[in-house]
Amino acid sequence: MKLPSKTVERLSQYRRILQNYKHLEESYIFSHDLAKLLKINPVQVRRDFMLIGFSGSSRNGYEVTNLLDYIDSTLTLPKSQNATIIGMGELGKALFKHISSNPVCPVIIPATFDIDPKNSNQENYGISCFDLTRAPEIINKYDIQIAVLALVTNDIQEVVDSLLVSGIKSIVNFSAGPFRVPDNIYLKDFDIRTTLEEISYFISQE
Amino acid sequence: MKLPSKTVERLSQYRRILQNYKHLEESYIFSHDLAKLLKINPVQVRRDFMLIGFSGSSRNGYEVTNLLDYIDSTLTLPKSQNATIIGMGELGKALFKHISSNPVCPVIIPATFDIDPKNSNQENYGISCFDLTRAPEIINKYDIQIAVLALVTNDIQEVVDSLLVSGIKSIVNFSAGPFRVPDNIYLKDFDIRTTLEEISYFISQE
Repeated sequence: MKLPSKTVERLSQYRRILQNYKHLEESYIFSHDLAKLLKINPVQVRRDFMLIGFSGSSRNGYEVTNLLDYIDSTLTLPKSQNATIIGMGELGKALFKHISSNPVCPVIIPATFDIDPKNSNQENYGISCFDLTRAPEIINKYDIQIAVLALVTNDIQEVVDSLLVSGIKSIVNFSAGPFRVPDNIYLKDFDIRTTLEEISYFISQE
Repeated sequence: MKLPSKTVERLSQYRRILQNYKHLEESYIFSHDLAKLLKINPVQVRRDFMLIGFSGSSRNGYEVTNLLDYIDSTLTLPKSQNATIIGMGELGKALFKHISSNPVCPVIIPATFDIDPKNSNQENYGISCFDLTRAPEIINKYDIQIAVLALVTNDIQEVVDSLLVSGIKSIVNFSAGPFRVPDNIYLKDFDIRTTLEEISYFISQE
């Protein structure tokens, strides 16, 4: 069964919360308590758990250890996905470590890329950084489908186009955009500069 | 006039696109071309420009240089806002450089914090990193209202609570959450681990 995108996102968040309770023996949690922590409606929580086939009791709520097992088995994938980081400057390196240091992260980074010869043709934490011109070959070799963009360049569209041609299916963007991708490509924007501009505007209006 | 949050976000994105055209003399752009680049409705683009009092002609579209001036004067703030980074490990340092290297960034970072003595009580790029226990005093001294969280800790709620008490009004979160904030606090989540979990799930279902 293919779950809705938002349900998967929330399951991942429920799991993170529940892990704080799992050392308590026979602990239970109510949907409204979980909902409060995530600022969502308790109905939403109950609907998500129904979707993965887990039910609680109205008296005690959900049994935490069991619920965690259910979420784990839903989110655990038959195999890890391979991802790459484009741009191994300081931000790229920090993201690499941040991602790799997560013990339950479903993503493996077998190779990275850069357009700057200062960063490419070397290893970071034991992983090779290639020149971006080698993307088609390396992305195909490792079956990489996810690209994290941490690159500063004026030709971001050109970089993105070359990644898509090489077989990338989804992009997490930390670079200043914008750029276009076809509708079947999953794009998540983490543009911190635009965010800070927006926040500053609102604070100054108050 | 206080603009809607989404309009400010789009204005910031329009500006970034238009800057690519401004060196062309007397260049014009149509709302539908701008809309296509951002994958939104052209009606939305025209509505946004009406809101800031800028109009184009149906024949030529919008004059780029003029439009850029209008957007600039709308988004330019009477003064820069002060922000801080909580957690000056590798991710925090990389975010510091990424933010500071933006010439039009409306945010200044006068101080940073960490809970790890290995990172605090020193300078990074000329900016002091303080122990988080000094947050109330330093945040007040520099009138800091924005906090970027780049901290790995199990007590993220405790850290967030101490920041809010110190006067922080908005949080950009790169740490694994979740945590609660009151409704009047602007929270933007950049949780890359959850995002990768979500993306992996969808790729594996295809």
